[in-house]
Amino acid sequence: MRIDIITVLPELLKSPFEASILKRAIDAGLVEVHFHNLRDYTTDRYKSIDDTQFGGGAGMVMMIEPIDKCISKLKAERDYDEVIYMTPDGNTLNQRIANTLSIKENIIILCGHYKGVDQRVRDLLITKEISIGDYVLSGGELGAAVLCDAVIRLIPGVLGNETSALTDSFQDNLLAPPIYTKPREYKGMKVPEILFTGHFANIEKWREDEAYKHTQNRRPDLLKD
Amino acid sequence: MRIDIITVLPELLKSPFEASILKRAIDAGLVEVHFHNLRDYTTDRYKSIDDTQFGGGAGMVMMIEPIDKCISKLKAERDYDEVIYMTPDGNTLNQRIANTLSIKENIIILCGHYKGVDQRVRDLLITKEISIGDYVLSGGELGAAVLCDAVIRLIPGVLGNETSALTDSFQDNLLAPPIYTKPREYKGMKVPEILFTGHFANIEKWREDEAYKHTQNRRPDLLKD
Repeated sequence: MRIDIITVLPELLKSPFEASILKRAIDAGLVEVHFHNLRDYTTDRYKSIDDTQFGGGAGMVMMIEPIDKCISKLKAERDYDEVIYMTPDGNTLNQRIANTLSIKENIIILCGHYKGVDQRVRDLLITKEISIGDYVLSGGELGAAVLCDAVIRLIPGVLGNETSALTDSFQDNLLAPPIYTKPREYKGMKVPEILFTGHFANIEKWREDEAYKHTQNRRPDLLKD
Repeated sequence: MRIDIITVLPELLKSPFEASILKRAIDAGLVEVHFHNLRDYTTDRYKSIDDTQFGGGAGMVMMIEPIDKCISKLKAERDYDEVIYMTPDGNTLNQRIANTLSIKENIIILCGHYKGVDQRVRDLLITKEISIGDYVLSGGELGAAVLCDAVIRLIPGVLGNETSALTDSFQDNLLAPPIYTKPREYKGMKVPEILFTGHFANIEKWREDEAYKHTQNRRPDLLKD
């Protein structure tokens, strides 16, 4: 899989891709991530990528021209499955979308900044708009990092133990059950006895019941799907 | 505001806080962000912070002891409004939660990793569990960065223009209207004429109508609240 990220702040995105699972996936050649600095596609000597809003109002708007140039250059080099724009009013990211994207070959992610991009970018160049949640961030960079993490960890071979991702929250519309590790007792708080019985079927049953109860308690909406 | 982030991967969190709005807010003294490496609170010589699950199953679980030590040390130094655990089964972050947190004085954010933390950490130490969305990430670090960004940009004085955040998506349960900047025409695509009339009241009305239509089209659920 190849991911091309277009941003005005490539330096903001650096560290999440240089640590942990994303780094491991890149080092193992399971995914390539390329950053493109939008300022390299500007035409004026100030390297402007934004300008004031037509019609007035606070906040700068990212211009279409540098974005179009950058995306056109990438598209001339290879085919892309999706050109994604990170925006709070996009489709809300969920595990199903992450699963779908994890089997794509080439994707572009455009990070918005300031008030966002000129509407014509969205009309002309974008194939999918994604939001990571109902809140506003100062830019699309963290959203892009979140999307990459959610997607890349699902690529087969990225997680050490393949079963690990399958027992995560949301993979089966259930939240994860409680988990425990050493010590067996801490400040008077004990681990549930069932986990020491060695009876795997009973433990599985207990976990399923707990996952169901936890979901019903916290996120009954997930059970309706 | 002071934010203490507890993590096993402080290096992953670095760059988002060294760029853009977060950096500006920190430089301006509007917020202090401190990273605490959980491995500094371990007791064995391998600096272990995790162990296998009781009852069996894939994935490692973060142990309570180093976390308890770190949080206890911080709490001995000052009072905290919230001790937040980033977890996919927490309360889903939204703009209202971000607004609420932006007026707190001191908060701790614990980043989960691997399969998560021992359930007793959540029972004993955590006051608020937050998810940034219905998807699984390889750790809580990106979630913590997202939460910090969403919250910090709302602290008065952080954004250059105070009105800017107020016209963002979600502040009034409406998605933002389309925005445009130069050039007036690009590859045959024109900016709506209304934006050039100079009639501010009409432009505002048009934007409200567009925001409403856009919300009804994409996120009718927001209009029900």
